[in-house]
Amino acid sequence: MNIPGRFLLVLYVLCCAFAIGQAQESAKPKTKPDAGAAVRVVLDAQVAAWNAGKLEEFMVGYWRSGELTFVSGGRKLQGWDATLERYRKTYQADGKEMGKLTFKDLDIELLSPTASFVRGQFQLKMSDGQELSGRFTLIFRKFKDGWKIVHDHTSSNQ
Amino acid sequence: MNIPGRFLLVLYVLCCAFAIGQAQESAKPKTKPDAGAAVRVVLDAQVAAWNAGKLEEFMVGYWRSGELTFVSGGRKLQGWDATLERYRKTYQADGKEMGKLTFKDLDIELLSPTASFVRGQFQLKMSDGQELSGRFTLIFRKFKDGWKIVHDHTSSNQ
Repeated sequence: MNIPGRFLLVLYVLCCAFAIGQAQESAKPKTKPDAGAAVRVVLDAQVAAWNAGKLEEFMVGYWRSGELTFVSGGRKLQGWDATLERYRKTYQADGKEMGKLTFKDLDIELLSPTASFVRGQFQLKMSDGQELSGRFTLIFRKFKDGWKIVHDHTSSNQ
Repeated sequence: MNIPGRFLLVLYVLCCAFAIGQAQESAKPKTKPDAGAAVRVVLDAQVAAWNAGKLEEFMVGYWRSGELTFVSGGRKLQGWDATLERYRKTYQADGKEMGKLTFKDLDIELLSPTASFVRGQFQLKMSDGQELSGRFTLIFRKFKDGWKIVHDHTSSNQ
């Protein structure tokens, strides 16, 4: 092989190595397969906390930030504190109760390795047999301390 | 320069070119700066279509798929056809009107180069002076034919 031929061979090998690298990159799944499961863990922990009457533990699933948004009944609340306050007034004030929470028809869709959204239905069974239900849309983002809800839009059937 | 020296020079130049390429790649913003503007264009087109009484044109902003979901009043509709049908019944049936639509307090947040979500408020002014309003959460995905709403969760104040 002459010298230009050896140059071409080196170039060819380098190009092949680069092409294989690129192909491997594009074959990678856009989201980790366990991201959906990680989001599900947060939701299950919320249900368990709610049914144990531990509202602060339930709130761990939300982004602890003034930028968290919570929409219900066509109105928007801004921030984690305001969201907790609403839950306290609605479910822990005198004559109120938290009831037994169930999530149904959950659909977790990954939008990127660090973002997902969840569609679902909630049911709340009260001690007097009354049942509240409705639907929610949650936007999750992945932070250093895990997946957190950054936006919650909930509307009830009632 | 001897022959091995020339090999090393070629390799060095190739490595530098690759490193510069990689640096440029990582310096790229994760989302195109005009993605938010592109989503805004879809929303503006929807408002213009609605106010011209063109419901089918308004529906162009939605993903024309059986997988589109529309949640309102705690209930979920599945698919583009069912969503159009709901709009027709609610705003174009006998004795109904579409009114004048305005979007306010819009917040477009990009979640990836091909996904975003929008928080906003809608107002509908009817010819008798009545005003309907509420809030919506939209999930947009970018398709070959542009950004489309894949999920709409709307709740009214009333």
